[in-house]
Amino acid sequence: MVQAFSIEEMRIGQSASTSKTITEADVVLFAGVSTDFNPAHLDEEYAKNTQFGGRIAHGMLSVGLISAVLGNKLPGPGTIYLGQTLKFRAPVHIGDTVTATVTVKELIVEKNRVVFETVCTVGGKVVIEGEATMMPPKKA
Amino acid sequence: MVQAFSIEEMRIGQSASTSKTITEADVVLFAGVSTDFNPAHLDEEYAKNTQFGGRIAHGMLSVGLISAVLGNKLPGPGTIYLGQTLKFRAPVHIGDTVTATVTVKELIVEKNRVVFETVCTVGGKVVIEGEATMMPPKKA
Amino acid sequence: MVQAFSIEEMRIGQSASTSKTITEADVVLFAGVSTDFNPAHLDEEYAKNTQFGGRIAHGMLSVGLISAVLGNKLPGPGTIYLGQTLKFRAPVHIGDTVTATVTVKELIVEKNRVVFETVCTVGGKVVIEGEATMMPPKKA
Amino acid sequence: MVQAFSIEEMRIGQSASTSKTITEADVVLFAGVSTDFNPAHLDEEYAKNTQFGGRIAHGMLSVGLISAVLGNKLPGPGTIYLGQTLKFRAPVHIGDTVTATVTVKELIVEKNRVVFETVCTVGGKVVIEGEATMMPPKKA
Repeated sequence: MVQAFSIEEMRIGQSASTSKTITEADVVLFAGVSTDFNPAHLDEEYAKNTQFGGRIAHGMLSVGLISAVLGNKLPGPGTIYLGQTLKFRAPVHIGDTVTATVTVKELIVEKNRVVFETVCTVGGKVVIEGEATMMPPKKA
Repeated sequence: MVQAFSIEEMRIGQSASTSKTITEADVVLFAGVSTDFNPAHLDEEYAKNTQFGGRIAHGMLSVGLISAVLGNKLPGPGTIYLGQTLKFRAPVHIGDTVTATVTVKELIVEKNRVVFETVCTVGGKVVIEGEATMMPPKKA
Repeated sequence: MVQAFSIEEMRIGQSASTSKTITEADVVLFAGVSTDFNPAHLDEEYAKNTQFGGRIAHGMLSVGLISAVLGNKLPGPGTIYLGQTLKFRAPVHIGDTVTATVTVKELIVEKNRVVFETVCTVGGKVVIEGEATMMPPKKA
Repeated sequence: MVQAFSIEEMRIGQSASTSKTITEADVVLFAGVSTDFNPAHLDEEYAKNTQFGGRIAHGMLSVGLISAVLGNKLPGPGTIYLGQTLKFRAPVHIGDTVTATVTVKELIVEKNRVVFETVCTVGGKVVIEGEATMMPPKKA
């Protein structure tokens, strides 16, 4: 089991991240689980004539990486996900490597809540940004 | 191609929805594409001792259904996803049927932006709620 | 729920279509669910020496798009699939975008059956053709 | 490589079969590759109120097993699939084990074509039947 952080063990500015190359396979599978078959994701002939110039990944596929960092690393297993805000700044193309980074922004000890800045980047460019509100596990 | 709605063709209160039973396969596949391997989703022996009493689906898996309705139905293909807020109110268990409903809340015609209330329910109970901000396709 | 068409609401010549780019991932996943592990689909070294010059998609993968249009759009949810004839005219290569189109050919009102011409094309060229026989949902 | 049969090596009545249990995972994956997200396949709450009493598998998922037998076993690799007729006789439920059997019905030596009876059964009951027309590989 991965070690999780309780609120007492976190400090403002602490961060964690994970990266993944978004493949055609990820997009096909995400379409299957989400039922999001928008042609922007699945139809290259349609997509090459859009402003994006080709198929793009589902936004929520990249957001899944934010969820992964929060659940796997910081705070880690046992955390309860309370809320998330998201602004989609730029598309993610198939083949892009997305890095999701979460950074502790606010520690609300009396309510056991932690607010994180959450950012996804591709090649250093922000593609998604927002904030997550988490309830970390209690100190063992 | 599914017909999409331009901002002139939408009205306050208009809504669309989609439903899907969340299966073990969905959770496994979402874990694979997101790298979110939190034991709350994948480890029944761990999960049965949590407050949820068993494995729960990734929150972002249900959020994918919101994305599906917005991209497939209302506004439909050609829409650009600008932002989303999410509050996770209750867990979704494997086997639950989630209904995602989006309802037009605000039409900002001069900026071509539409704000939707977005809700996921299981058996009539709200599990996720929030708002989406979309840029619908222009009238053909 | 997507609106479905009853037989009274359809007319000869009415059509619907959907398109999808057939990816390597689709072929791998179709092989997995169908157990069709023919090397023409999965073994590039074998396939490049065939008359097709490389791996081709399973024919039934493209046929799945016909099923998708019939079940999702025309007639839509609630339809019962009674029969299908298929002629495979040309191979579909990985990366091809397949468009499946169904067109009402015959309305047999007394038996509540509709015959559709069903065609899959790639770049305007017919790759699969045939007919589907459907029992659409009754008028609500 | 599996041995394939040329037309000279087949006889009327020769048959081959394969069986597979159709799982929820198969249905989710087939939905993803086909874009057929009809609620009869994915939404248990909807499906339990249909005449089928619950989610059923996509018909073309079972048909994939017919394709598997033809491509893997009889005639086997190198065969070209020319055509298929299908009658859907009964639904396949999640958890059903489908057996696809192909039987040589007609050998048209001068055109190098073989017609097969193709049947899918569940527990001995026919769920799909039809005929396949194949061009087997030439004798090496």
